[in-house]
Amino acid sequence: MHGQDNMDANLSELKDIVGNQHVLLSKEEQSGFVEDWRKRYHGVARAVVRPKSTAEVSKVLAWAYRNNVAIVPQGGNTGMLGGAIPSTRGDEIILSLTRLRTIRDVDVTNDAIVAEAGCTLLEIQEAAEKVNRLFPLSLGSEGTCQVGGNIATNAGGLEVVRYGPMRDLVLGLEVVLPDGEVLEQIYRLRKNNTGYDLKHLFIGAEGTLGIITAAALKLYPLPKTRVTAIAGLASPEDALVVLGIMKEEFGARLSTIEILSGLEMQLTTKHCGIIAPLQSEHGWYLLIELTETIANDLLTEHFATALHKCIEDGVVEDATVAQNNSQRAQFWNLRHMVAEGNNAAGRVLSHDTSVPVSEGARFIRRVEAAFAGSSDLKLVFVGHIGDGNIHAVAIFDRAKVPDEIFEEKAKEVSSIIFEIAIGLDGSISAEHGIGLSLRDRLKSYKQPREWTLMRAIKSAFDPKGLLNPGKLFAPETSADE
Amino acid sequence: MHGQDNMDANLSELKDIVGNQHVLLSKEEQSGFVEDWRKRYHGVARAVVRPKSTAEVSKVLAWAYRNNVAIVPQGGNTGMLGGAIPSTRGDEIILSLTRLRTIRDVDVTNDAIVAEAGCTLLEIQEAAEKVNRLFPLSLGSEGTCQVGGNIATNAGGLEVVRYGPMRDLVLGLEVVLPDGEVLEQIYRLRKNNTGYDLKHLFIGAEGTLGIITAAALKLYPLPKTRVTAIAGLASPEDALVVLGIMKEEFGARLSTIEILSGLEMQLTTKHCGIIAPLQSEHGWYLLIELTETIANDLLTEHFATALHKCIEDGVVEDATVAQNNSQRAQFWNLRHMVAEGNNAAGRVLSHDTSVPVSEGARFIRRVEAAFAGSSDLKLVFVGHIGDGNIHAVAIFDRAKVPDEIFEEKAKEVSSIIFEIAIGLDGSISAEHGIGLSLRDRLKSYKQPREWTLMRAIKSAFDPKGLLNPGKLFAPETSADE
Repeated sequence: MHGQDNMDANLSELKDIVGNQHVLLSKEEQSGFVEDWRKRYHGVARAVVRPKSTAEVSKVLAWAYRNNVAIVPQGGNTGMLGGAIPSTRGDEIILSLTRLRTIRDVDVTNDAIVAEAGCTLLEIQEAAEKVNRLFPLSLGSEGTCQVGGNIATNAGGLEVVRYGPMRDLVLGLEVVLPDGEVLEQIYRLRKNNTGYDLKHLFIGAEGTLGIITAAALKLYPLPKTRVTAIAGLASPEDALVVLGIMKEEFGARLSTIEILSGLEMQLTTKHCGIIAPLQSEHGWYLLIELTETIANDLLTEHFATALHKCIEDGVVEDATVAQNNSQRAQFWNLRHMVAEGNNAAGRVLSHDTSVPVSEGARFIRRVEAAFAGSSDLKLVFVGHIGDGNIHAVAIFDRAKVPDEIFEEKAKEVSSIIFEIAIGLDGSISAEHGIGLSLRDRLKSYKQPREWTLMRAIKSAFDPKGLLNPGKLFAPETSADE
Repeated sequence: MHGQDNMDANLSELKDIVGNQHVLLSKEEQSGFVEDWRKRYHGVARAVVRPKSTAEVSKVLAWAYRNNVAIVPQGGNTGMLGGAIPSTRGDEIILSLTRLRTIRDVDVTNDAIVAEAGCTLLEIQEAAEKVNRLFPLSLGSEGTCQVGGNIATNAGGLEVVRYGPMRDLVLGLEVVLPDGEVLEQIYRLRKNNTGYDLKHLFIGAEGTLGIITAAALKLYPLPKTRVTAIAGLASPEDALVVLGIMKEEFGARLSTIEILSGLEMQLTTKHCGIIAPLQSEHGWYLLIELTETIANDLLTEHFATALHKCIEDGVVEDATVAQNNSQRAQFWNLRHMVAEGNNAAGRVLSHDTSVPVSEGARFIRRVEAAFAGSSDLKLVFVGHIGDGNIHAVAIFDRAKVPDEIFEEKAKEVSSIIFEIAIGLDGSISAEHGIGLSLRDRLKSYKQPREWTLMRAIKSAFDPKGLLNPGKLFAPETSADE
């Protein structure tokens, strides 16, 4: 569909739309756009186009539609799976949303913020905090990732157990369709039951159905009390028991509960020069945070009592509650630095599976067992035990697994981990999406009819197949599509 | 598409699938199915079919698909807009889901309940409560309405301000597609980012895309403390101020905030023999409930203090906090009885518009102004001010508006109210859906492209147009479709 003819398309028309300096053609100018931040996916773009407004995005898409040019939308380029990187064919245009950076409205009465796609997550969080509200999505990359990308990939992160993923935080969207028409649905309504909810199709569609240019997002009361603890445990089974106790004791106040394996803690403290939070070493750790939207001086004490009870009951070995903000920041720093700890220890292959929350420990045990004899890799586990989304991270010994065999090894390891997740009624992607990386595997994990329906939706929204081709779905030329 | 040929379809094959006694053919047997509970919509069915399992639903749909027979799914038949009532042509089959009544699993560790479509909402609530969990959807009709219908119409109700509507409470669905294939997506996962989220298309689709046979639903911590108050106020503007104060003071604890106009209170207390909750009369009332998932003896006192402060600040005239469960039940009884109060006062025309929460008072004022001079009707207002979903209820004087002119009058009145809601960036249907009643109006309030996309989705899922034809969309014969 988008073959050779697009190479004739007149780029000077694009320059007329966005301005000469916002059509990037040289290799140097394009360098931050054609590969991902981890430098695993390398593409070639005919141009990088940087519109500054929804109107300009609309014109760029209309131009691409007329000329059968494929468009690869890109936000902060912090994705893990290559979803924002063009193919190597060189005939695609990268549409960077970075200049759509206006926060259009901070609407306290409606607990809503209306922001353009290129605003960073941090900018949204800060704008909310200024009016005494919380925007609860929280990710390691929040200073760089952009809200349009967060929506297109249905980002998850650190407070999903309380507030849900990005999908749950969207009130309305403004979306540019492949032919340039703007679908204006920036509703601020809390209830609207008038037909099919198109918004939910665009969320998590990874730019394959339309380009999200702005969104109305939900705001929440800003917590006035935050209490954070680190607990050391003997097993992931105990971690699930502690999760149950925390939910029972604190209800909706439980806003974060992250698990780290002992080796993950060792690598992070060692390679990042962080002081271990507990005196002795433990097999497993939990980072737990409670938040309260009212001032509550008793919460720290209440939390400490609950943890003490866990120690008496033998499900926690040791625990410490942060006594001040500096100590709290130290605990969180540990969680945020795990990727650096892992990278220092070897070549990293991370996974983003999910299982039902109740199966979290079983998932860990089965992955451990599957690689128990391996001398090629070490396993660490880190992630969101309250959501059943525990990242199994394989750290390969670079000496034993040289570059030339890494891809093959990685594929084998991932297949085993995916099968374990699926065997527990889980998913191969919990919060990172599909992108390029998982696209070829995805189909085999879907009921064929679901796949057919997804394809039909794609055709209805993007009949020419111009939006982010090759992402989510394999290219349409493949025989079995 | 589903013309005459379907009359040849062999009903004996249906009897083979569900059993002779579950294919209802006589007028007497069908009487509870072919009209709605308010007796406003009257249809004719070729048969009412009552399968007992997903497998039987699948066989019935496959039969209907082969024979081009249209299917009208029906749950508890408590809908407001005729969405579950067949046309008068007499060639449709009503598919009653009432016998799919198994709660398949109450899964405490995953905070999930898996229930079949025919379970009543009350059965779900009770099953959750038995394991110390809350299923938070709460409606006046909860003893009769069925969870399949609640999902198909994305029901709202009394605790949306805290927990969101039905859409937010669904983890996964089992759906039978028009040709009988079962889409098995009863996920219990909290995170799953693997392509388009089909679940959200079925939610609120009013049975036009597939038949929901079972669902995995979210459970929440069961509140251990509930405190309820009634406040009398001078104006709806003050009600919005109080809403802001309650959110600020109590955060997520605010689980219900309902507004009633003074006349609504008068009619309900008078016609239902309920004692007025406050000593003197007020222009407006709020029913406010706070819930806590932990025991909190201080909440009542804290609530009373906050209300007292509102009185000092002049935004509340009088207020009373329920001192025990019996008084709490009395307050709630008042809210639940409003429909009976209204029906006793005249012929009722209710509306289910929504506006941004901040526009709630403006919406009320504009509706009041639009009918200020009318001698044909009285206006009362009741509903969910925390969601911007305030039901404007016109009560017609039966003497002045006799039956023969009622429909025409009703149409005029509704048009005015809808235009006011739309003028405030609102919606014509917040929690009741579209059904038959609003179908012809809906299209004019949608961006044409949104309508085209909805139509394309309908065609992709139900190419023969056999599922609930004429609901949501006008029949395909109409010239402008």
